[in-house]
Formats: sequence, structure tokens, C-alpha cells
Amino acid sequence: MKRLLTVIFIVLAAITFSVNAGNGKAPKYIFLFIGDGMASPQRMVADEFARHAGHDRLVINKMPFHGTTRTGSISSLVTDSAASGTAIACGEKTYNGSIGIAKDGKRHLVSVAEVAKKKGMKVGIITTVTINHATPAAFYAHRTNRGQYYEIGLDLVASGFDFFAGSGVTRSNNKKSKLYKGDINDLAKKAGYTVLGRKDDFSVLRAKKGKVLINAPLPYDIDRHNDDPFTLAKFTEMGIDFLDNEKGFFMMVEGGKIDYAGHANDAAANLREVLAFDDAVRVAVNFAKKHPDETLIVVTGDHETGGMTMGFAATGYAMYMERLAHQKCSAGEFNNKLKAAMKENKNFSFEDAKLLLTKYFGFRFDGKDKDPMQINSKELKQLSDAFKKGKLPHAARLVMAAKAGIGWSTGAHTALPVLTTAQGKCAEKFSGFYENTEISNRLKALLK
Amino acid sequence: MKRLLTVIFIVLAAITFSVNAGNGKAPKYIFLFIGDGMASPQRMVADEFARHAGHDRLVINKMPFHGTTRTGSISSLVTDSAASGTAIACGEKTYNGSIGIAKDGKRHLVSVAEVAKKKGMKVGIITTVTINHATPAAFYAHRTNRGQYYEIGLDLVASGFDFFAGSGVTRSNNKKSKLYKGDINDLAKKAGYTVLGRKDDFSVLRAKKGKVLINAPLPYDIDRHNDDPFTLAKFTEMGIDFLDNEKGFFMMVEGGKIDYAGHANDAAANLREVLAFDDAVRVAVNFAKKHPDETLIVVTGDHETGGMTMGFAATGYAMYMERLAHQKCSAGEFNNKLKAAMKENKNFSFEDAKLLLTKYFGFRFDGKDKDPMQINSKELKQLSDAFKKGKLPHAARLVMAAKAGIGWSTGAHTALPVLTTAQGKCAEKFSGFYENTEISNRLKALLK
Repeated sequence: MKRLLTVIFIVLAAITFSVNAGNGKAPKYIFLFIGDGMASPQRMVADEFARHAGHDRLVINKMPFHGTTRTGSISSLVTDSAASGTAIACGEKTYNGSIGIAKDGKRHLVSVAEVAKKKGMKVGIITTVTINHATPAAFYAHRTNRGQYYEIGLDLVASGFDFFAGSGVTRSNNKKSKLYKGDINDLAKKAGYTVLGRKDDFSVLRAKKGKVLINAPLPYDIDRHNDDPFTLAKFTEMGIDFLDNEKGFFMMVEGGKIDYAGHANDAAANLREVLAFDDAVRVAVNFAKKHPDETLIVVTGDHETGGMTMGFAATGYAMYMERLAHQKCSAGEFNNKLKAAMKENKNFSFEDAKLLLTKYFGFRFDGKDKDPMQINSKELKQLSDAFKKGKLPHAARLVMAAKAGIGWSTGAHTALPVLTTAQGKCAEKFSGFYENTEISNRLKALLK
Repeated sequence: MKRLLTVIFIVLAAITFSVNAGNGKAPKYIFLFIGDGMASPQRMVADEFARHAGHDRLVINKMPFHGTTRTGSISSLVTDSAASGTAIACGEKTYNGSIGIAKDGKRHLVSVAEVAKKKGMKVGIITTVTINHATPAAFYAHRTNRGQYYEIGLDLVASGFDFFAGSGVTRSNNKKSKLYKGDINDLAKKAGYTVLGRKDDFSVLRAKKGKVLINAPLPYDIDRHNDDPFTLAKFTEMGIDFLDNEKGFFMMVEGGKIDYAGHANDAAANLREVLAFDDAVRVAVNFAKKHPDETLIVVTGDHETGGMTMGFAATGYAMYMERLAHQKCSAGEFNNKLKAAMKENKNFSFEDAKLLLTKYFGFRFDGKDKDPMQINSKELKQLSDAFKKGKLPHAARLVMAAKAGIGWSTGAHTALPVLTTAQGKCAEKFSGFYENTEISNRLKALLK
């Protein structure tokens, strides 16, 4: 009898414990993915494009928990990436421009990455843009202004974080800085970082020793050569390999050029950046399959860029996502190609430009059929007028957006709240409507 | 010993049962709120406006479970309200224009309202627009084309649903219909409905007997007189009072004019419709407080309208929601006022129009200070040119949107997935990314 009671007690205790342990324990592996300038429109345009192209649908959207995240800063309903990065990283609203500094312009805030590091976890900071750009900087730096790139670089070196990867360090050798002590890359080496460029031997990563700073500039994904192995997904894979350890890790991965393509109102470049970002998240999702009870993946954006809409007056009740597949390079890269061609040919005319437009945007000028990529008379005038004014790339991307049925309302950011999705351990905490500061605060609460 | 085992068994069984009952039992009260033309931008513009005005934040956004709902129809990525209404009501994708008919153009689909009715629950269908408009119609009618208003009216009468309320019945007496049998309102009376107009005695509702059809046309909420008691919230309150019974109810409540204001690109009218919609949801939320374990509230949209953005090139990194408070009537109502004034005064000039613009949009023309509502020279030209062309109301709402920092990309619908939020019993089922058909399918699964 007593024995039976003991058995029942143990069984009940075990059940109770397992339930509580499941809720209470912190995830060992935390991934925070931030799409810069990525809200619902960007995520959904890329998703519809993938669907049309017969690709896998985006893993970032498939996650079981969805939240709506308000992005406004102290300065404005429309945040910049510094204030939103700080809110997401440190859990306090601040002014546009601030990197890890409170709204009083003085107090240093503490980022979730710093909390994780202090707890003994390893920390990785990864981005497609430069590593001391606003969003990644908010996780390790404390500077009153995002433009203090060199000083942010000093904070990078001092952070002691284990793994950095991105498109180099902006103004790494700014001798005008009052705090100048040498090139940031050299300072990093002195501080024990292995600094790797595109052409270096990456096998040192396998040793999992010391700290790493990877400077491998990434182009827009739409402009990437097929044989180029460097991508955000590759960085993420390297980061996981290097950081995995008994005490776990915190990794922030930013798709920083989604924002650039948003500012440029370049729909095709934008969606390709979101797809590349999704590929990086997919690496984490595959890792999570091996550690399902220990991994949390949160995917958010810092704000919307461009006022992107999935419909446009010109196309009425239709969208033609598939037409965006005709665009073979970013509008910026098209500008480079155009300039190079004009330099080579002093008599370069609009007729020559048409050939480039056909090659890189898929526009047709032969009028032989009703192909929707045929340029109509109104579009022709728009393009030729722009050519005369030296603004052909700008006009080309506008014609492209109109053909696809995508609208843009601004070259700046907007106040649309972003979509946050999450999967894995404690992911349910990211459902609902909350301020971007809650991302940091809820993650910090898990780490306590 | 045996007795102790029995006690333990009973305790364990009770625990198991209570857990399962909590998950398995259908909610007794189901509210499905649909904002026509309402996606994140509309919900968030209204929320920011409320925040700026010091009002309560919107209950529709505060709900704990958020989902992202894809709206595309068989016809297009950009759905119309008929196809999306049918998908939400019946759980199958169909072509634009269809009301409760499958994509083959023949098969009758079964709506969640019909399932609820069959199960013995009472059913209410409520809207701000006419009761045989596409969205409400999808819950009770089966017609190949949304334009068959009279025939949809016949289906309304035949449905046997308990409570209808809205802005009347479109083409209720269409003698050209091959199926004409008399005015829909008369047919409803014959079928046992109490038909109530704005001036009738509503105390009959208290009897909770028979069936009710309320025809009380609602204006845009921004055009409503303060002493007008009829609102979507009032309809919802009446519906709850009338429908509450032992077997529970299913109620669909549509904010139908959010869409109208979206088509008109009228930001102030749009957000006021969302606020009025939120007021209706608030009635359900208060009801749920009395029946927390029995009530499910789901809030969704059928598609986005207008390509609304929370930022605009003219205002850069800023939004000024508070400026929308200056607008005192819809652009449509302003048009009426303008026409009336022009009819009265044969010499009506742009100078006279300015007085109306000041009165109804808060625009200032005196140039006395830097007030942002002062009309600058560019805006003045925009307004005066439009006045000459008879398009002043259109220009006035564009100037208003630009001053507030709101963009619009189209007068049509867009493909942006909508935000679905839910609270109460089984609300967790509405988290994640899913097609609009899942709203119906998941509700039907609960009713099984």
C-alpha cells in the first residue's frame, strides 16, 4: 500500500515536473532574425513570388505563432533602424539615431546579446550589410549617433562577442575620430579575433576556438554570381558550426539589404533579398529539427520601408508577380551597366538603352505580340524621357513595379507595424500585439 | 486499499476529463467579425489615431492570438468580396463574384452559419451595408453572381436564420427578376420575420420570439449625427439580446463600409469606420467577460482595399495622424454639401469652396502662421484646379491624406494578406499563416 502510494506520487511528480520544466527552462539556442525594412508586404510579395515560381513557400511565414509588432520610436511614429534596433535589442524606446543609448541621450542600455553573453552563452552577430551598421550595432554598441561608425567599431572589438559576419566594417580606419587607435580590423586582431576576408581559409572555423570576424561583402542577392558561395545562409551555417557549445548560443541575423531595395523601390531586388533571408532562416529551422526542445527562432522586422503595396492602380484587381522574374539585376546594378555602356560608346542612344532594358528587365519593344512585357506607348515615353534626364534606372523599376502590380508610396520608412513569427521553445510568447521593445524583454525574461 | 485506488482513479479521471473538455467542447457563443477591406494598415491607422486622440486602443488588435490570412481567389491574387466572403463562410476557394457557389459554378457550398443553424444554434447576420451585399450573403445564399441581389434576398428569406440587421435590402423589389414573387421585405414577413425599420418599436426584440430583419440604413460613421442611436455596435447588442439562448449562437458582424472608404481613398472616413467596427467588437468582448469559457471571438478582414500605407513621400519619416481629426465628414458627404451650396449660389466660386474646405477638412488659407493645416501654394493649385474640373472632393481627400502621411496605391482591392485576431475559447486555433478558407474550416471543426 505504502509502496503503491509512493509509485503514484513519483509518477505524478514526474508529470508535474516535466510540464513545468517544459515551460520554465530557457531555450539553449536562440535565433533572432531581423529583416530590415521587412513587414507583411515584403514577406508576402516574396511568398507569392515563390508560390508562382513553384518554389517552397517561405519558412518565415509558416511559423505557428504570429505577432504584430509596433515600431514607432520616441522621435516619430516612423522609426529609423537605430531606434528600432535599440528597441529590439535592448527593450527600451529611444530616439531615432541612438545606438544602445536611452532616450536621455546618456544612459547605456543592455542588449539581450549582452545578457546572453554574461550568462555564458556564445553570441553571434550576422548581417548582409556592414557589421557596424545600425541594426547589428544596437546589439553590442552604445553610441549617441548611428553615424559614429568608427566608435561603434571600437565597441564591436570590446564586446568580446564570439562571432561576427557581414559586409565589412564601415569607416574602419577613420583617422578623424577623436578615439582613433588604428584600423578596427587590426584592433580586432589584437583583441584575439581571427579576421577573415572572402579569400581567406575558413577551415580555422572548425577549431571553434577564440573569436571570429568575417568581412565578406555581400552584393544584393539578385546581383550575386551563381558560383559565389557567400550568402546570409552561409554566414548562418558558419555561425552555428562555430558557436554550438554546451552552454548554447544567441544569434542575431539581419537581412539588411531588404531595406536598401525598399528605399530604392526596387521590387525584384527586394523580394530576392527576402528569399535570401528566408534561406538563412531555413538553416536555423534545419538546426532546430535536431534540437527541437532547445531551440527558439524569432523572425521580425525593424520597420517597413517604401510603403510597398500588393496592388496598384494600373493593374486593377490583379497582380502579376511572375513578371518580376524578368528582372535580372537590381536597379542600382543596372545603373552601373548603363554607365559602363555609355562610357564605351560615345554615341550611346535610347535605342542602345532599349537593348539593355530587354536584357535586364525583360522589356520588349518589338510590338510583335500581346506579351505583357511589351512596352506600350505611355511606358515608352516614360522610359525615353527618363533616359534624356539620366534617370532611366529609376523609371525602369517603376515600369517594372507597375507591370507586376506593386505600389510604393515613399522612398522612406513607414509606420506599418511589422509581422513577428516564431517557432520552437517558448515561441508562443511572441503571439499578440506588442511594442518592438517586447522582443528584447521577452527574450531577456527567458534568459533569467 | 481498494477504496484509495478508486479515489485516485476518480481524481485522475476528473483531471483528464476537465483537460479534454476544455479542448474538445465547442464554444457556445461564436462571433465572427469581418472588416471588409480591412487588413493591417487599416487596423493600425485607426489604432494610432486612437492612441493620438487619447482614446482606448482598439480591442481588435489587443487579442492574444494573431494570424496572417491569405485572401487570393481562384480568379486572381486580388479577390473580390464575394469570393473571399464565400471562402471565409464556406471553406472553399471560388471565383470572384461567386456567392456560396463552388469554382465549378454549380455546386452549392455549406457555410459555417448553416452548420451552426443545423446544430440548433441561433444565427445572426449583421452588417453596416445592405444585408444582401456580397459578404453577408456568402453566409446564407447560393448564387453564381453577387449582382443577383433579388435572388440573394430570396435566399435570405429561405435561410430561416434568426436575426438579420443592416442597411436594408438592395433591389428588394426587382420586378425584372425571373424569380420575382414580391418585395423581399414582404416575403420575409410572410415567412415569419418581424421586419423593423428605423422608426419602428424595437421593444418586440425583448420577446426573443420568431425571427427578425432590421432595415436601418447606416451612414458612414464620420457622417453620423451624434444623436443617431443606430450603429454597428447597437446592432450587435440587439443581436446578442435577441439570440442568447441555451443552445448558443453564431453571429457574423461585418464592417462593410471600411471597404467603401478604402475605394474612395478617404483616410478619415476609413479609420472612423474601423473605430465603429471596433466598438461592435467591444460589445462582444464585454459579453465574453460574462461567458469567458464559452465564447470565441474571431476578427478578420476579407481583403485589403486601397493599398493604404502608413507613410507617404510628402511627409518623409513622419506621420501626423492627429491631422485627420480635422476632417468632419466623408469626401462623399462633402461632395453633397458642395453640390447643395453650388445649387443655392449660382455664382459659387473657389473662394466660397475654401470656406467649405475650412469647415469640413480644417484646411486654412489665411497664411497667418505655420499651422500644418495651412494650405501651401502647391496644394492651393491642386485644389483650385480640381475645383475647375469638378473634382474638388477627390483632391481634398488627397491633400488630407498627404498632410497626415497616408498613401494609397489604388482605388481597387489589393492582395495583402489580412490580419486575423482571436480571443476566448479555442482562439489559439487562429494563430499562424493560413488561407481564408481555414476560418470556416476551423470553425466548422469546432462545431462538429
